[in-house]
Amino acid sequence: MTETGTATVSEREQHGAEVMRTLGIDPNAVIAGVAPLDERFGHTIVEYIFGDIVGRPELDLRTRQLATLAILTTLGGCEPQLETHLRATLRAGATRAEIVALLTHVAAYAGIPKVMNALGVAKRVLPPA
Amino acid sequence: MTETGTATVSEREQHGAEVMRTLGIDPNAVIAGVAPLDERFGHTIVEYIFGDIVGRPELDLRTRQLATLAILTTLGGCEPQLETHLRATLRAGATRAEIVALLTHVAAYAGIPKVMNALGVAKRVLPPA
Amino acid sequence: MTETGTATVSEREQHGAEVMRTLGIDPNAVIAGVAPLDERFGHTIVEYIFGDIVGRPELDLRTRQLATLAILTTLGGCEPQLETHLRATLRAGATRAEIVALLTHVAAYAGIPKVMNALGVAKRVLPPA
Amino acid sequence: MTETGTATVSEREQHGAEVMRTLGIDPNAVIAGVAPLDERFGHTIVEYIFGDIVGRPELDLRTRQLATLAILTTLGGCEPQLETHLRATLRAGATRAEIVALLTHVAAYAGIPKVMNALGVAKRVLPPA
Amino acid sequence: MTETGTATVSEREQHGAEVMRTLGIDPNAVIAGVAPLDERFGHTIVEYIFGDIVGRPELDLRTRQLATLAILTTLGGCEPQLETHLRATLRAGATRAEIVALLTHVAAYAGIPKVMNALGVAKRVLPPA
Amino acid sequence: MTETGTATVSEREQHGAEVMRTLGIDPNAVIAGVAPLDERFGHTIVEYIFGDIVGRPELDLRTRQLATLAILTTLGGCEPQLETHLRATLRAGATRAEIVALLTHVAAYAGIPKVMNALGVAKRVLPPA
Repeated sequence: MTETGTATVSEREQHGAEVMRTLGIDPNAVIAGVAPLDERFGHTIVEYIFGDIVGRPELDLRTRQLATLAILTTLGGCEPQLETHLRATLRAGATRAEIVALLTHVAAYAGIPKVMNALGVAKRVLPPA
Repeated sequence: MTETGTATVSEREQHGAEVMRTLGIDPNAVIAGVAPLDERFGHTIVEYIFGDIVGRPELDLRTRQLATLAILTTLGGCEPQLETHLRATLRAGATRAEIVALLTHVAAYAGIPKVMNALGVAKRVLPPA
Repeated sequence: MTETGTATVSEREQHGAEVMRTLGIDPNAVIAGVAPLDERFGHTIVEYIFGDIVGRPELDLRTRQLATLAILTTLGGCEPQLETHLRATLRAGATRAEIVALLTHVAAYAGIPKVMNALGVAKRVLPPA
Repeated sequence: MTETGTATVSEREQHGAEVMRTLGIDPNAVIAGVAPLDERFGHTIVEYIFGDIVGRPELDLRTRQLATLAILTTLGGCEPQLETHLRATLRAGATRAEIVALLTHVAAYAGIPKVMNALGVAKRVLPPA
Repeated sequence: MTETGTATVSEREQHGAEVMRTLGIDPNAVIAGVAPLDERFGHTIVEYIFGDIVGRPELDLRTRQLATLAILTTLGGCEPQLETHLRATLRAGATRAEIVALLTHVAAYAGIPKVMNALGVAKRVLPPA
Repeated sequence: MTETGTATVSEREQHGAEVMRTLGIDPNAVIAGVAPLDERFGHTIVEYIFGDIVGRPELDLRTRQLATLAILTTLGGCEPQLETHLRATLRAGATRAEIVALLTHVAAYAGIPKVMNALGVAKRVLPPA
């Protein structure tokens, strides 16, 4: 393992990359997307976010992804990430009906407007019922 | 069914009250806690939040509760609600390890400080491992 | 009254629909906009948000609408809802000058950037002075 | 008028101080509260926040104060400011019932938990019904 | 000095206008941009934000601007302001590498999604490495 | 290097621990504080937050810490973290006057109430002028 910018990557980054692929997110695309600004930060996302947090076994990926949708909806202004994670949540095994139920659930705790924004993205991204 | 302030309650409010009891939250305590300020608002919480949103069958209560913890952690400043919902999430069938994994999951998307606050509440509220 | 998905609606939903029409918001358009994802959630908005909260008589609609603009501006990222509610606030009887004063008032408590975003929407939506 | 730290204050700061007194907030207490850290910042609050924003005539103080309660509730974590502004809103002419209606109104747009926090402060601060 | 709407401006507004020009922001464009809605508010921004807060000598402009980027990224939904302040931060003397390091620093405390949004703006606005 | 729960730690975690000590934050206390809930998460904070983000050389620690104060003030509800990071910012070389100027700077972009909360913590934590 070397720290950064070399051909070898840590085991944890490899684990993170696998988790991302399971979710239908291309780790190399994330790394390449940030690389014009910063060589290391994309690797940090793969290694740390997906290898050391999302990829831990204590909680299943489907529940994690539904929680991620709840967080992104609550934060607001994260429409591009919602789009990626709506697809990833389907890949993790949640159904369209579960995802919609999750998004409307957020209304109770974070209000209607944030949910309407998320439903707007869901309408474009989710497959027809 | 009558609209408000009478002895009879709507079927939906009855359903909401049952959902709350399943989660170990006393609907009458919520109504009584708000009543000195407003007679109706506590009923609105029972009827709509728990009867018309949380209590819908499309998503199981355990996943809903884990999502609620994610939302409350992301919002911040909701320590009293976190305390109630940490207990409710255990009641809904999530394990201590799943709850902790959910709280640390939030760090990826909403940052470390909000998570540290939530873990501080969890340390007080969750049963020992 | 039946719970959902039938021809009859609760008295409270009827009240909510009237409040929405007073504000120039079409309740059927809201219900139809969400229906491809969820049959019930649009009704929940009409019945609960407008029938059981916004439509209560303790506070006048003009003040409620100005407060709604303050909330949406503070939340941020709610430009589509701001557009709807700027028009609704005019319908509720607030003047253009009052609305602009309300939006700039938010700067003191939630900062300049959120207000600049809201003023950008207001410039498009409000009638000329 | 001199810029800062002298005996004379600008007309705008005098106007801001009057607005604060109308609301039952002591401008000298605000200035003195911040002075151990910064001589100027308290004057900035009096002069600009209350003299140049809150004190403008385009919108009445009662509506402004109700909007301020909506903003503070939406922001969350502003319990000390809520306490001050609940009293100020009564001074500006809003009734207890209007204030409670405003706080519950926020639930529609920013969710229940923030409102429960604000109602907790209101229960302590508002006079009995 | 007169209060508002006249040809003369306060010394503090003149100071604010100079600070803005140092940062490459045109004070007259800001005033003119808001003027169709409100004659005074643009002047408040120049005088109060830039003359009485940003323009104070206790902290250098480069550090202030990097902090402003951190605040705007944390708030979210402030892409237009980020664009302006990314350019202003370069004008204040920060390097491209420092700005990117600042934006990725925010990830630790406010999460990855807000940072990805800010990096998206930075990729468009910052000069090539 | 091994992944977790063993005696050896990665080079990056060692680097993170050094950065924390430079800031007067005890890495072992952070790890021990979280350990009753989760063995790994404290290490994640040391290794990734301080080793892979805060500890990168592209931006100096003093500027990073001032930005961290800006982020925590903007988030709100992070008073315990503000207390830790106010001390850390002094350790990183910022003066009391610079820290106060940074906190009041936030008012322009995130509003007065969040800043008043942060100044309240600063009054307790910062050494006398």
